[in-house]
Amino acid sequence: MKIGVLGAGQLGRMLALAGYPLANRFRFLDTTGHPSAGIGEVMIDTDQKHVQSFLEDVDLVTYEFEHLPVSLVQAIEAEKPVYPGSEAIRVCQNRAEEKALFDRLGIPTPAYRLVDSAESLEAAARELGTPVVAKSITEGYDGKGQAVLKDPAEAADAWKRINHPRLIVESFVDFVREVSIIAVRGRDGEVVFYPMAENVHVDGILRYSLAPMPDLDDSVQHTADEYIRALLDELDYVGVLTLELFQCADGSLLANEMAPRVHNSGHWTMDGAVTSQFENHLRAIQGLPLGDTSARAPTCMVNVIGREPEPSQVLAMRDAHLHRYDKSERAGRKLGHINLVADDHASLLKRVRECAALVPDAPEVRFSFED
Amino acid sequence: MKIGVLGAGQLGRMLALAGYPLANRFRFLDTTGHPSAGIGEVMIDTDQKHVQSFLEDVDLVTYEFEHLPVSLVQAIEAEKPVYPGSEAIRVCQNRAEEKALFDRLGIPTPAYRLVDSAESLEAAARELGTPVVAKSITEGYDGKGQAVLKDPAEAADAWKRINHPRLIVESFVDFVREVSIIAVRGRDGEVVFYPMAENVHVDGILRYSLAPMPDLDDSVQHTADEYIRALLDELDYVGVLTLELFQCADGSLLANEMAPRVHNSGHWTMDGAVTSQFENHLRAIQGLPLGDTSARAPTCMVNVIGREPEPSQVLAMRDAHLHRYDKSERAGRKLGHINLVADDHASLLKRVRECAALVPDAPEVRFSFED
Repeated sequence: MKIGVLGAGQLGRMLALAGYPLANRFRFLDTTGHPSAGIGEVMIDTDQKHVQSFLEDVDLVTYEFEHLPVSLVQAIEAEKPVYPGSEAIRVCQNRAEEKALFDRLGIPTPAYRLVDSAESLEAAARELGTPVVAKSITEGYDGKGQAVLKDPAEAADAWKRINHPRLIVESFVDFVREVSIIAVRGRDGEVVFYPMAENVHVDGILRYSLAPMPDLDDSVQHTADEYIRALLDELDYVGVLTLELFQCADGSLLANEMAPRVHNSGHWTMDGAVTSQFENHLRAIQGLPLGDTSARAPTCMVNVIGREPEPSQVLAMRDAHLHRYDKSERAGRKLGHINLVADDHASLLKRVRECAALVPDAPEVRFSFED
Repeated sequence: MKIGVLGAGQLGRMLALAGYPLANRFRFLDTTGHPSAGIGEVMIDTDQKHVQSFLEDVDLVTYEFEHLPVSLVQAIEAEKPVYPGSEAIRVCQNRAEEKALFDRLGIPTPAYRLVDSAESLEAAARELGTPVVAKSITEGYDGKGQAVLKDPAEAADAWKRINHPRLIVESFVDFVREVSIIAVRGRDGEVVFYPMAENVHVDGILRYSLAPMPDLDDSVQHTADEYIRALLDELDYVGVLTLELFQCADGSLLANEMAPRVHNSGHWTMDGAVTSQFENHLRAIQGLPLGDTSARAPTCMVNVIGREPEPSQVLAMRDAHLHRYDKSERAGRKLGHINLVADDHASLLKRVRECAALVPDAPEVRFSFED
C-alpha cells in the first residue's frame, strides 16, 4: 500500500516511521518549499503543477498539514480516496465554521462573537467583557494572527494589526488547565479514544504533554470522548482527530479548537501507549482494525524548540526516548521531542524536571495536578 | 551522523527505523544484488567497484550481514571507523576460529573435532559417538552446508554432499532448550545485557523467541552475561553481539555460535524492552550512552516465513505488533515478525497460539517451561 501524504514535515516523517512496519510506502507532497520529512519520496510542488505525478501509483492520500487549499484536496478526492476527507479540512481551516459545528453538536466553547470591522470588534469586546482574544478566522497557527484586548478601546489598533476581514472574538476562560483528547475513527465507524493529556503551552507553542493525568475524573474523560465522537461521526471522519479543550475549576470542558490530523499533544503515545497515534492513523485510513489506545505507564512529552539538547545527556536518562526531526536549529522551530516514561507520576515529574534542565530554553515544568 | 551499513536486508531496514529518531541517515551497500531494506539510500555493488562512493560522506560503517569478504571490511576500516571491527567478522565467519575463541575464553561448547577428509570425518564421528553434525567451517547459514551422521559409515557420503575442504564435527547435545543472550558494548567498554530468550527453531530457521523466560535461574543469566562479556572484551567489540547457546537439563550452558550483529532472536526487544537492540546498536557505534535493556513485560516474537498472514487478523489481536519487511513471498524467506506482549506468561502463550493459527505454516508452539 503506497500512501500519499500532503505535507512533508515531522508529522509525515513519524507517520512513515510507523508505516514501514505495516509494509506501507510513502510519497510526500510539500507545498511550502521547505520539506523536512527526510524519508520516503518527497516531491516539492509550490505551484500545484505536480499533483498528477504525486497521485500516480498512490493508493490513498492523507495529510499531516491542514493549511492546504480546500480546492486542491477536493480535486485529489475526485481521483483517489482521501482520509480524512476535505470537509474536515474545510471546517478546521475556518474558526467560524469550527465554532458553528461545536455549537450545532452541543459541544460547549468559550463565549464568542464574529466581527468584520473595528467597530464590531469593539462592540464584541464590550459585550463579552475584556480581556478578550481576537483571532483571524483563517490561517491562525501557533499564536499567529491573534491579539489580546485588555480594553474595548484597543479594538481599532488590534483590527489593524491582525489585518484580516473577519475575526472571531473570544472571552478569556478562567481555566485550570489545557487538555486534549485524541481519537481515531476507522472506515467502518469504529472509534477509539486515547487517555486525555494535560498540555502546557508557552507563547502559543506546546512545550509539555502528560498522559494519563493522575487526577482526571473518569466522567470528564467520558465527556471528552462523547464530544469528539460527535465530531467524528458528523464529519464521517476517518483517521486521527485532535480536540483541544480548556478544563475549568468545576471540571467542565470548553472546546478550543480541533486539528484533523496526528497532533503534537499525542506524541507521548509513541512510547507511552500500546499503539501510537501514528500507527492508528495508518490503520484507520487503510481500513485495518484499530489498535489498543491504553497507556502503558505515565508518560510525558517534552518538546525541543529552537535549539537541541546534547543527545548523549538525554539518552543517559532512564526510559527517555529521543525523537529528533533532523532539522536545523531556528528560533521557535519544532526540532524534536523527548518522551519520558515512569512507573508513577511522582518519579515521572522528577525526571521531566531533570530533562527540562537539559533542553535549551525549556520553560518551568508545572502541571495543574501538582497544586 | 550518516551511517553506512554493509548489507541491505530487513536488519538494516529495522536499524534505519530505529536510527531516524536519533537524526541518523543511512546508506546501504548491498553485495547480493537483492536488497530489501526499502529505506535510505541503497547502493547495489556486486563486484566491489562502488565502495569508494559508498564511503563518501559516511561518518561510520556498521553491518547487518557478516558473510562479507574480510578483506573488504579491512579496506573500509582503513578509511572509516567500522563497528564492530573486521576481527569480529573474521572470527564469526569461521567456525574453527569461533570455537577456538570459545575454548580460549573458557566458554564451554559441545565436544567437537576439525576434519579435512572423509576419513578424518569418519574417525571423528567414531570418537565423538554418533549421531554427530558436520558443518563446513565457513559460509554456513540457516542450516545450509550441514549434514547429520547417524553412523560413522555415512562419512564418505556426507563429505561429498557438504563439499567443503574443512569441516567441524560436533556431538549432539542433549539440551532442554535453545537460548540466546544479546549484549551491547559501547565505545567506552560499557556492557549491557538483555534478558535471555528461549528460541524455537524448525529446520534451522528461527520461528519463536520468548523473553524473559519465566523459569530462568538468575545464576544462568549471570553465567551467560559473563560468557558474552568475555567475548565482547576480547574482541574489543562495539555494538550488539548475539550468542546462541544450548541449555542442558542441569541448567548449564553450551555455546553454539555467535553473530556479530543485531539478531532475529532479539526482535522481541522492539516492543518488549525499554530500548530495542537496534537503537542500542546505534547508540553503541556512535559513542552514545547505552539504553536500558530491561523487559517491559513478557514478550514473544513470532516469525513470518515464506507466506504472510492477513494483516487485519494479526492487528485485531490485543498488543500485537506487526513488523513486515515489505518483501515478496518465497518459501523459507523471512518476511516479517509479530511481537506479542502480555501481562503474564500464561496469557502470552495463549495469544502466541492464537497468533500461530493466523501465520501460514507456523509450527507448533511449545516452550520448554511448559513441561
